[in-house]
Amino acid sequence: MRRFVADRARRAATAASTRSAATRSAAAPSPYAPPTAPTAPSRPPPAAAMASAMVRAMSTAAAPVSLDTINPKVLKCEYAVRGEIVTHAQNLQQELQKNPDSLPFEEILYCNIGNPQSLGQQPVTFFREVLSLCDHPALLDKSETHALYSSDAIERAWQILEKIPGRATGAYSHSQGIKGLRDEIAAGIAARDGFHASGDNIFLTDGASPAVHMMMQLLIRSENDGILCPIPQYPLYSASIALHGGSLVPYFLDEETGWGLEVDELKKQLEESQSKGITVRALVVINPGNPTGQVLAEENQKKIVEFCKNEGLVLLADEVYQENIYVEDKQFHSFKKVARSMGYTDDDLPLVSFQSVSKGYYGECGKRGGYMEVTGFSADVREQIYKVASVNLCSNVSGQILASLIMNPPKAGDESYESFMVERDGILSSLARRAKALEEAFNSLEGITCNKAEGAMYLFPRIHLPQKAIGAAQAAGTAPDAYYACRLLEATGIVVVPGSGFGQVPGTWHFRCTILPQEDKIPAIISKFKEFHEKFMDEFRD
Amino acid sequence: MRRFVADRARRAATAASTRSAATRSAAAPSPYAPPTAPTAPSRPPPAAAMASAMVRAMSTAAAPVSLDTINPKVLKCEYAVRGEIVTHAQNLQQELQKNPDSLPFEEILYCNIGNPQSLGQQPVTFFREVLSLCDHPALLDKSETHALYSSDAIERAWQILEKIPGRATGAYSHSQGIKGLRDEIAAGIAARDGFHASGDNIFLTDGASPAVHMMMQLLIRSENDGILCPIPQYPLYSASIALHGGSLVPYFLDEETGWGLEVDELKKQLEESQSKGITVRALVVINPGNPTGQVLAEENQKKIVEFCKNEGLVLLADEVYQENIYVEDKQFHSFKKVARSMGYTDDDLPLVSFQSVSKGYYGECGKRGGYMEVTGFSADVREQIYKVASVNLCSNVSGQILASLIMNPPKAGDESYESFMVERDGILSSLARRAKALEEAFNSLEGITCNKAEGAMYLFPRIHLPQKAIGAAQAAGTAPDAYYACRLLEATGIVVVPGSGFGQVPGTWHFRCTILPQEDKIPAIISKFKEFHEKFMDEFRD
Repeated sequence: MRRFVADRARRAATAASTRSAATRSAAAPSPYAPPTAPTAPSRPPPAAAMASAMVRAMSTAAAPVSLDTINPKVLKCEYAVRGEIVTHAQNLQQELQKNPDSLPFEEILYCNIGNPQSLGQQPVTFFREVLSLCDHPALLDKSETHALYSSDAIERAWQILEKIPGRATGAYSHSQGIKGLRDEIAAGIAARDGFHASGDNIFLTDGASPAVHMMMQLLIRSENDGILCPIPQYPLYSASIALHGGSLVPYFLDEETGWGLEVDELKKQLEESQSKGITVRALVVINPGNPTGQVLAEENQKKIVEFCKNEGLVLLADEVYQENIYVEDKQFHSFKKVARSMGYTDDDLPLVSFQSVSKGYYGECGKRGGYMEVTGFSADVREQIYKVASVNLCSNVSGQILASLIMNPPKAGDESYESFMVERDGILSSLARRAKALEEAFNSLEGITCNKAEGAMYLFPRIHLPQKAIGAAQAAGTAPDAYYACRLLEATGIVVVPGSGFGQVPGTWHFRCTILPQEDKIPAIISKFKEFHEKFMDEFRD
Repeated sequence: MRRFVADRARRAATAASTRSAATRSAAAPSPYAPPTAPTAPSRPPPAAAMASAMVRAMSTAAAPVSLDTINPKVLKCEYAVRGEIVTHAQNLQQELQKNPDSLPFEEILYCNIGNPQSLGQQPVTFFREVLSLCDHPALLDKSETHALYSSDAIERAWQILEKIPGRATGAYSHSQGIKGLRDEIAAGIAARDGFHASGDNIFLTDGASPAVHMMMQLLIRSENDGILCPIPQYPLYSASIALHGGSLVPYFLDEETGWGLEVDELKKQLEESQSKGITVRALVVINPGNPTGQVLAEENQKKIVEFCKNEGLVLLADEVYQENIYVEDKQFHSFKKVARSMGYTDDDLPLVSFQSVSKGYYGECGKRGGYMEVTGFSADVREQIYKVASVNLCSNVSGQILASLIMNPPKAGDESYESFMVERDGILSSLARRAKALEEAFNSLEGITCNKAEGAMYLFPRIHLPQKAIGAAQAAGTAPDAYYACRLLEATGIVVVPGSGFGQVPGTWHFRCTILPQEDKIPAIISKFKEFHEKFMDEFRD
């Protein structure tokens, strides 16, 4: 058995005076130290600390950069989805490669991150055909190309190249992205919503994350500016708010009602933060929910829109899972559609919708494509958003092309349509089955309750840990759910993210587990998980 | 004739109280107003301003987001390379499309930005073949593929896929980039420099710009932190420092000595800023220079390294033009090679080298690939850089692949080698000829002096403007070089960037012009330019 030691960065930030030149150049130690070690090995003993302080004082100049002298906002930022547990998993994976029999499992199962293709999901053929042709347009002039590519992929590649000035897929584009592709995306949005959309409002980005950063950068002036975020939340938001020096204003989703989002709770938290001198600038809503998987009802969304309108908040709508709906009684409605259906126009409500090529049925995470649809801002503020986009020149053109493809996939009658639909529906229906199988498995276990994943790619089960397990975690200096996740990893190779990385009601413990392992692996994962959990509960049962 | 009006954002920031709801929702007006207009039309007259203030006071809530309430760092940031002159050019281009005979030229010639493929440069075939195959790996199993792709491109695609876990080009990679590709890049660096390089020190990024932002984010805590930057500088640096709230500490390059970088000047500026309470954290060196085109001599680089070592500065080496050298008596030396040749190791000097797939002979701007090689930082600071990288998950995988290709191009004996070398040398020798032709043309004109472009992609001629022209610019409320650039654009369609966007010795005026128009267009550009310049001088000669 091993135990967590406290997070290195936090520790370093508060114990900076004992840092030595020797530890600075050493490799990062594992976050897991043997439980019987009398002192944490990565913290030098007092004598060594004193000696190193002397060395520092004697040198001609202090090290130019140390944890004491970097931007404290960077230190403060945390991103659990790729945090300590994942580093530990990567180290175990290296151990496995060197010595395959050294651990009680044969492989690491990365259920920590929504990264479908890393777990074997195959890319959608039509999309990849088009990308491949756009990367090497010389192919389009060759007759042999027809033996390798479908005719509609060739046709689409031509159409896309015609939209790119000089057909130059290797040129920087307009800072918002290629105009013709933005128009195509806008047409896709209009078809989805039944309301007008304009390519002028689309900002193509390298995935949704840079888009979120851009909006945070625009809105946050100081720690007195707050952003309302769901708890639990996808930690991109807390990380981005920390990096930009703002305040996260939490609102709690109600686990009892399937992670319900209540406007009363929004109001309560808004008023509470205002009484502390925080100016709340925006409300983040993730729909379908991450890590919580709920799909908002239209009536609920209307109340949220009304709330933003009344309180003068920017509505930041994370809608990257809009294609991932697994239950028949729920449907995705974009916030823009809801706002327009209420009669609100571009003049009434600043609203940003984030979309990504990384999710949906396509799961093209490595392509880093996405967009934000920006409505309801004045022309001069829009110019400022454009300026920030222009400092990074443009997003990658392959990602731009892919973003246009997901918003305009093959249509009935196209050569690829049938095979495309088989691929698409195969992935989505399999994801629905996996979500259900995992949810049922979790709910069958002692001390675990798990809401349905109505959408998105995750389950967020609650673990009711025995007091003795909480005590063991405390003794190891770590959060109980992090302790549980660490034990799970070390026993089974399954990587999940502790609920503390997303935020949760104090005193409750959760973890996020993706539904993404390939379907044939799910039974084995469930059985490994069950075996671990039963042993864990036996070990710690009060 | 038209004239500039003052920059909208600056104006708005200081005249915010007169902003009305009506102007907020209006489209952005052209930055060029007719010279005889009695009042600038985009600023409402006092009566309208009062009325709009009343409307604001009467509405239930102020507009959620206005120039008064966004992050002032965003307002402060400027990026001339895609600034006002480019917006004006884009508007003229639209005018041309609607009415081809409306302007005294037939096309806009974008010499404002280093974007070779937008001006007709063709991508390198081998690189595109490999990208195309990696985008659609199913092709690799088909015999027909050999009819369309070179055998070494197929072989290389296989090698790359083997380096990607699960061959999943659509998966998020490691946050620093795919390990096998980083190792390949490190091998390329080692072969270039003759000193060891490690893939663990490589951070793959979506071009060099996000890498620069990451380092600024790490180093800048407040406006009391300064970054030494060359003047003239590529405005990414001033923009990034502004966005992160730091202070740009200028050091002036010496135009008289071919944009020489003198350590005495660095020391002087460092001490001056220190006396103002600024803590200088880092020195930015752009080599080959942008916009100035000089290539640093090794002896000069040694002094710069020594300076950084003595003063405890991070050396931020922008080396994205390392392949673009056009003179026989100069050679590119990476700062890491220079530092290592002086005996400095990883423990002595924090040094970051930025590289990009956008420049060189490949010019793959739209692919958004690049890397930074990070050496000389402690392990705990490195972890913080890793954490910031991980918040954005990873850079785009096609860009990662391309970065590995430029650092490991075809070798003698490979099927593609000869045609690759023809493409590569063709581009580089043509760029050298274009640089020379433009330099000579500029130097042949009254009142223009122009240093040689030893490297990079730009000329930065000085224009000695007649007093009368300076007066006309002042009357138009704009900088004299911006006035000149605007007149040039409106007469010829040629887009250059005013020197004021890069910084220059006060009282001197310049513009940056790329050497990137295709070679057959250079004579016409020169003759248009000459004609404009002679008329301009005739108009304003004192």
